[in-house]
Amino acid sequence: MLGLKVNQRVAGARAKPASVPARARKPCVSVRAAAVNKVVLAYSGGLDTSIILKWLQDTYGCEVVTFTADLGQGEELEPARAKAEKMGVKQIFIDDLREEFVRDYVFPMFRANALYEGTYLLGTSIARPLIAKRQIEIAKEVGADAVSHGATGKGNDQVRFEVGYYSLKPDIKVIAPWREWDLLSRTKLIEYAEKNGIPVPSSKRGEPPFSMDANLLHISYEGNALEDPWATPDESMFTRSVSPEKAPDQPTEIELAFEKGNPVAIDGVPMSPATLLTKLNQLGGANGIGRVDLVESRFVGMKSRGVYETPGGTILQVAHRAMESITLDREELHMKDDVMPRYAELVYNGFWFSPEREALQALVDKTQEYCTGVVKVKLYKGNVTVCGRKSPFSLYDKVIASFEDDKGLYNQADAGGFIKLQALRLRTLGVNRYKML
Amino acid sequence: MLGLKVNQRVAGARAKPASVPARARKPCVSVRAAAVNKVVLAYSGGLDTSIILKWLQDTYGCEVVTFTADLGQGEELEPARAKAEKMGVKQIFIDDLREEFVRDYVFPMFRANALYEGTYLLGTSIARPLIAKRQIEIAKEVGADAVSHGATGKGNDQVRFEVGYYSLKPDIKVIAPWREWDLLSRTKLIEYAEKNGIPVPSSKRGEPPFSMDANLLHISYEGNALEDPWATPDESMFTRSVSPEKAPDQPTEIELAFEKGNPVAIDGVPMSPATLLTKLNQLGGANGIGRVDLVESRFVGMKSRGVYETPGGTILQVAHRAMESITLDREELHMKDDVMPRYAELVYNGFWFSPEREALQALVDKTQEYCTGVVKVKLYKGNVTVCGRKSPFSLYDKVIASFEDDKGLYNQADAGGFIKLQALRLRTLGVNRYKML
Amino acid sequence: MLGLKVNQRVAGARAKPASVPARARKPCVSVRAAAVNKVVLAYSGGLDTSIILKWLQDTYGCEVVTFTADLGQGEELEPARAKAEKMGVKQIFIDDLREEFVRDYVFPMFRANALYEGTYLLGTSIARPLIAKRQIEIAKEVGADAVSHGATGKGNDQVRFEVGYYSLKPDIKVIAPWREWDLLSRTKLIEYAEKNGIPVPSSKRGEPPFSMDANLLHISYEGNALEDPWATPDESMFTRSVSPEKAPDQPTEIELAFEKGNPVAIDGVPMSPATLLTKLNQLGGANGIGRVDLVESRFVGMKSRGVYETPGGTILQVAHRAMESITLDREELHMKDDVMPRYAELVYNGFWFSPEREALQALVDKTQEYCTGVVKVKLYKGNVTVCGRKSPFSLYDKVIASFEDDKGLYNQADAGGFIKLQALRLRTLGVNRYKML
Amino acid sequence: MLGLKVNQRVAGARAKPASVPARARKPCVSVRAAAVNKVVLAYSGGLDTSIILKWLQDTYGCEVVTFTADLGQGEELEPARAKAEKMGVKQIFIDDLREEFVRDYVFPMFRANALYEGTYLLGTSIARPLIAKRQIEIAKEVGADAVSHGATGKGNDQVRFEVGYYSLKPDIKVIAPWREWDLLSRTKLIEYAEKNGIPVPSSKRGEPPFSMDANLLHISYEGNALEDPWATPDESMFTRSVSPEKAPDQPTEIELAFEKGNPVAIDGVPMSPATLLTKLNQLGGANGIGRVDLVESRFVGMKSRGVYETPGGTILQVAHRAMESITLDREELHMKDDVMPRYAELVYNGFWFSPEREALQALVDKTQEYCTGVVKVKLYKGNVTVCGRKSPFSLYDKVIASFEDDKGLYNQADAGGFIKLQALRLRTLGVNRYKML
Repeated sequence: MLGLKVNQRVAGARAKPASVPARARKPCVSVRAAAVNKVVLAYSGGLDTSIILKWLQDTYGCEVVTFTADLGQGEELEPARAKAEKMGVKQIFIDDLREEFVRDYVFPMFRANALYEGTYLLGTSIARPLIAKRQIEIAKEVGADAVSHGATGKGNDQVRFEVGYYSLKPDIKVIAPWREWDLLSRTKLIEYAEKNGIPVPSSKRGEPPFSMDANLLHISYEGNALEDPWATPDESMFTRSVSPEKAPDQPTEIELAFEKGNPVAIDGVPMSPATLLTKLNQLGGANGIGRVDLVESRFVGMKSRGVYETPGGTILQVAHRAMESITLDREELHMKDDVMPRYAELVYNGFWFSPEREALQALVDKTQEYCTGVVKVKLYKGNVTVCGRKSPFSLYDKVIASFEDDKGLYNQADAGGFIKLQALRLRTLGVNRYKML
Repeated sequence: MLGLKVNQRVAGARAKPASVPARARKPCVSVRAAAVNKVVLAYSGGLDTSIILKWLQDTYGCEVVTFTADLGQGEELEPARAKAEKMGVKQIFIDDLREEFVRDYVFPMFRANALYEGTYLLGTSIARPLIAKRQIEIAKEVGADAVSHGATGKGNDQVRFEVGYYSLKPDIKVIAPWREWDLLSRTKLIEYAEKNGIPVPSSKRGEPPFSMDANLLHISYEGNALEDPWATPDESMFTRSVSPEKAPDQPTEIELAFEKGNPVAIDGVPMSPATLLTKLNQLGGANGIGRVDLVESRFVGMKSRGVYETPGGTILQVAHRAMESITLDREELHMKDDVMPRYAELVYNGFWFSPEREALQALVDKTQEYCTGVVKVKLYKGNVTVCGRKSPFSLYDKVIASFEDDKGLYNQADAGGFIKLQALRLRTLGVNRYKML
Repeated sequence: MLGLKVNQRVAGARAKPASVPARARKPCVSVRAAAVNKVVLAYSGGLDTSIILKWLQDTYGCEVVTFTADLGQGEELEPARAKAEKMGVKQIFIDDLREEFVRDYVFPMFRANALYEGTYLLGTSIARPLIAKRQIEIAKEVGADAVSHGATGKGNDQVRFEVGYYSLKPDIKVIAPWREWDLLSRTKLIEYAEKNGIPVPSSKRGEPPFSMDANLLHISYEGNALEDPWATPDESMFTRSVSPEKAPDQPTEIELAFEKGNPVAIDGVPMSPATLLTKLNQLGGANGIGRVDLVESRFVGMKSRGVYETPGGTILQVAHRAMESITLDREELHMKDDVMPRYAELVYNGFWFSPEREALQALVDKTQEYCTGVVKVKLYKGNVTVCGRKSPFSLYDKVIASFEDDKGLYNQADAGGFIKLQALRLRTLGVNRYKML
Repeated sequence: MLGLKVNQRVAGARAKPASVPARARKPCVSVRAAAVNKVVLAYSGGLDTSIILKWLQDTYGCEVVTFTADLGQGEELEPARAKAEKMGVKQIFIDDLREEFVRDYVFPMFRANALYEGTYLLGTSIARPLIAKRQIEIAKEVGADAVSHGATGKGNDQVRFEVGYYSLKPDIKVIAPWREWDLLSRTKLIEYAEKNGIPVPSSKRGEPPFSMDANLLHISYEGNALEDPWATPDESMFTRSVSPEKAPDQPTEIELAFEKGNPVAIDGVPMSPATLLTKLNQLGGANGIGRVDLVESRFVGMKSRGVYETPGGTILQVAHRAMESITLDREELHMKDDVMPRYAELVYNGFWFSPEREALQALVDKTQEYCTGVVKVKLYKGNVTVCGRKSPFSLYDKVIASFEDDKGLYNQADAGGFIKLQALRLRTLGVNRYKML
């Protein structure tokens, strides 16, 4: 047996707390308390994860370490510190991960042109592995034996978090409160919060119209009012973009420079990854770009309706494809296209830290070595229109392409032989099969 | 030897006319004249194919049968008859193929969501096989032993035509004048026309700014002024759509009904395939929808810049994907996405009449049996936005999807086991490979 | 909500019996008894499923219907009837499914050349869906609300059975005793059997050296003595084939005829599917053919070592590929090869009744329409050697293939143009990228 | 226009000599003579390439440089030098490329488990790119502007050579005598040889029974007597292996050690790549291993029958798969299997030096980082049987895999949740689609 350690066996054991059904939980609390010493919680500072924080302390009787990441979600993080301190947390981690997020997660994924089910730019999916990784790093640093998150038992995020945890630390214990506790309605949650002195913002008292997740790449809306896939979402919901109708009547044109498949400058100004994506978000949002409304197939087996705003990412994908169109050879481009849906599926399903995603990334990155140059796009009321592309490694050759004199670079007679041999197998076949004639 | 007949051997023979280089052609004319008795020419009635008509008569000394198809290109076809008659053509075929085109070529391709290199809806590619098929049918009907077309030796269309010919009639002789003659500049062409009494419209005397190809699905622009991929095309070029800037300030909302993956009605009004696509073109064109500007990789090996207008097709693909999003199971959807680039490549390269395209079509069509329902889209200044989708076979289940009470249809605890087994292989792996911890 | 019915909700409910952990079971028995009225058990008549039969009666207090299938496993089935009767079973189904098994499951899979991880012919995997289907048919016939099987919680078979059940009857209740009970060692099982008057054969008293599964396609060996992947299995284990060493010194040559991808005759004698496979098993087994020893990746996440004997299937796959080699066009053949691993994975994982398997089958079957002819193979001491293949639809053309005079069917000069255009993109690329020169 | 140089235009020009048909050649000789200054010929020393050598000197009036490679074909190379000298060649290159061949071409391909059309180990295909590369290196070294080879116009080798040339040196001129000259029968060739004082071995005077190609990986037989795919080849043809019937009655067992996917030692003795493959060839050949008889689909469009002996390669592929079975994760293994047919197709078609092969290689090589360990195989009368496999990075875990007590590493209850969520989409679907119940 190669290496899964003793405490992992506890985590995977038949009697492990996580799989005890609701009604049998009471008597197990002491078992749990014994089983976990210290847990690192992915803590946003909001109501739900504050309740989880308290619930972990109570249920497992263990020390909770909080970890709050700045992934560009656009919220103040210091209040999270204050809340955690108030709940007695001694080790509080608040990290600005924006540059790492964009450089090591968003950009590699955009090099692959990843698009889930033809429409979704994977804005939530791509953030989870980084949070998981950082939680595991912290767990090691502080000697924690468990991690916990606030994702529910119906969504994809629980898978993305936990697959990340297990990949990076096979013997980690995972606590998923939403799958364990009985606080399964908003009323019960609020009761629990009030009983435990957790402040409940008035906005959280009623049923929220939808749930949101945000980071530097996108914001998502799901649930409640959106659960009818025939109903159009209300305009007031959107936060990152104006509607195309409200966008300026004048188009904005920008030049986006790429190096090895990554965007590096806007209009000639070099920028760090996070700075560049922030700028693209501003440009896209101002021009009504990047909204999608879709029904997606979740990894856990159900269909789900989501609405997303990905202003900068939408510009980036269009421009990146245009950059590839003149710098990638036909066959490497087609090979990338062939494997793209699978790459997107892997990211969506939570298999970022997996050998299959890494093998695909190796393929993708090999194709990006010369994906360098500049793309000109026009932004106008929801449209991203490619207007020009150029590259020192361009494979577009005006002389060969021309229908006029090509100076002998292309011999039209070659096409006759080319077609003849392409068709040879079909001629042989046609004799047998095509009955038409 | 199974079946390739004697006259095919002539076509494929080492000494066949088509491969004789330009300067050696003179002495072969008599050979040619002997080799072809009757040729069916794909004849548009325009200057180039009129020159070809004459050139075929002169060079091969054979009877020429003309075939002119109405594929919705938006031109009068009767002038083609008059011209052909004037040049002594006795058998003239003018066919309205619009319904067949949309029903048997465009719709099957849209069931596959075909998109070449992530951007091109294959508007020209999909028309060629039908023209080829009809030419072969006519060849049989009139007892012709050869076919001819006006595609040049640098483009994809020659392949699409000729692969189609050979698949459907392996022993057909193919004459591709652009690869044979020496009329390789516009000046020479016009000289030839004038010498032979073929009228030359004044618009054709100068260098045209670009070449075009049109049918009910799209119009394409290529060449000359467009040959610099950094230069933005002039607004005056476009003919099928207003620019987003000039489109109405009020959005248009439509409901598109599907049956088994094919659109069948707009706003509740059932329409034939060609009628429906015509209507979608009007709606899309009026709202600035369906323009793309791209650099594509041709099958003959070069990169080429094209600009396309596909107003109706653009709406159709967006709506079809939305229809699939609630009626196709996740895995059949993903399987379709996985093979789509290959399907698109086959259509682009001209392999419509091939067993591999037919095998893929069988896969695609199998998935469309329940792709039935209605999609609501908003058209606004270049944007096609999905606003709603519904189906009697919808796989979206509001109760299961809800984060609220799901009446026991989904047991969140199941997710724990699901994740554990998904992660098991990665935990085993992590012990060896992920060195981080 | 489209259609999942009330009793399904019970099955999927948070409190459903099946997921109650071992130590909490006692108090639930009455709940269970209430929850299931009648269960159809896949019953082999062996010790394990006899214990399950009794356990179901005791634990769920419900009526048990037994179903025993003849899939060619080579055992008498009437003893199963006697045993079931003795345990008070009133409805006993014993069906000979051999022809259906081979015709509708084995042959479609062999049309796809399915091979899991390059080595496994899927002998066990392909039998499970048929058993599941027949159980569900019986459940409907007898008005049962549940089904049960004897597969353990670690293997693939539980998934294959249950995915089949759920696909065909979404509201069925599933009882998987091995995941529920606490009879987790052989000692406990035998105690339970003895306490309940179930006869225990002396061979079952000690630890068996391995577990087996058999049907007309193969027999498998797993577990215990085989759990060391470095250890060679003992010759005495094998039951369906002699070793190559013990096989005859004289080869046997046979001719296998195919129609549309299915074998239909041996040496000119037409046979039904099951008869033909039985005959191939005899021929293969006598000549030491069809043993493999492998480590496979289970769907539930672990690696497992298995040894298989598939004598007839091994001959069949070799011969089918040879039949395809002259009757399938290159590109349809390659497309089949491209999707084959995924097809095999679907069968292995238990997704026979899934839209994705059916879509792939549509693709595969489309390619088999002309896969008709005869293949000659030599069987000798473990080897299956193709010696000849012929077909009325052969695409092999001796005249074209010949390096000698081909009567003009192939113009060698065409190859020059073919290569030039194949290379054009690489020449363009080479200027930028291949730094060698 | 990026970089294709002036002399390349000559090569590609409409009037280029290579495409002039046979009967028009005479007057062009002077043009040719002017067009080529120095040509590097892939020269075996045999009759055909000796004739080519002379023909190049005569027809092009240019200097010929010969290049003879030792790729393990098993022939003396010094006679080639003597012959070349006798024909006035001044620059003669004879290189031992065996180690480079195995290390940089054969082994990378075996890391991918490449198998064309399920049967062919690509022994000829993989040698051509290396020859092409070395020819281009020499062309640069000696200042040659052209290269030439002895492959015919019907086969795949012409493509493999020439695509290699063009990739590595886009402006190289290529002379393919078999597509240009009129020496199209054996009689004419021998006449030409005799007229020019080239010695003709008596064995070459009659029609040879088949053509052969050999290197360290394999030997191939094609043509003539083999052209009837129903006829069994004569035993006397084989040169690298005894027949299974004649192989020893005692099996041979060997242990093959791998590092990162490459074989590095036999029975504990480390060996260089070429030494190891040589040894495997001896072992395989002595035990009747590695013969295949197949009909393959050539890239140029026809079916062709070939018989191959690949004794060492056959052992290597079986053992490599076994090594992967315990060291590669399921999903990386399956991803490799998914792309393998395409990799094999690329090698077969001659696209070794292409960005798509290199991208796939990057994927493959990423998966081989831990493919290290030892495989035990038994060789016996044509069979290669895996008997054991072990690795310091083994993912096989006996404790988890065991049906007995697994110390809590695997919780069988997890499987219930796993299956439930795997089936959820199918249950939803079943309500609509599976009509059975």
